[in-house]
Amino acid sequence: MSTSNIFANIPARVASEIVERIAHSSAVTIERIISPRGYASPGGFWYDGDRNEWVLVLQGGAAVLFEGESSPRLLSAGDQMTIPAHTRHRVEWTDPDQVTVWLAVFY
Amino acid sequence: MSTSNIFANIPARVASEIVERIAHSSAVTIERIISPRGYASPGGFWYDGDRNEWVLVLQGGAAVLFEGESSPRLLSAGDQMTIPAHTRHRVEWTDPDQVTVWLAVFY
Repeated sequence: MSTSNIFANIPARVASEIVERIAHSSAVTIERIISPRGYASPGGFWYDGDRNEWVLVLQGGAAVLFEGESSPRLLSAGDQMTIPAHTRHRVEWTDPDQVTVWLAVFY
Repeated sequence: MSTSNIFANIPARVASEIVERIAHSSAVTIERIISPRGYASPGGFWYDGDRNEWVLVLQGGAAVLFEGESSPRLLSAGDQMTIPAHTRHRVEWTDPDQVTVWLAVFY
């Protein structure tokens, strides 16, 4: 067992989303995802995952819009939510002042 | 989807370990675990999990000893590790000055 810190090696700026796999099995994938400052999903794009996703904001903040809803959910550091499979959603914006770091568990 | 904060409702002191389920499926369980200040696993006790466990310290700190090793791994806030199934381990101590909060994913 090796240990590492979830906040290590976070660049101050990234040009596009960086996805790092932390752990993986046939049933689950755990990732650290770094979103650029002031990021938004491409226009008209909706994430539509095959698996459930539990997500925790480790740093920064974001607004996540679910299809059919009029306003996005605002997430800050420490905020978490579970997104059931095939629940279409998109990132409306992320913190403009720092990269946003997510912990995501797909299962 | 409801959101909540992973740092919400953490008591300043707890008498024994508190385990809260965050998400669950047949394949994975995500928990927040709060350990008392200055906690240690019962003498001679080894955790021996049927599932892999990925663990992240959210607050506090701990020393985790693996069977057959001479010294424990020291974990602080942000430190993570994966503990394969049936890897016997015990908590030697936790932070005496605050409760220690773990995020654990069993899979």
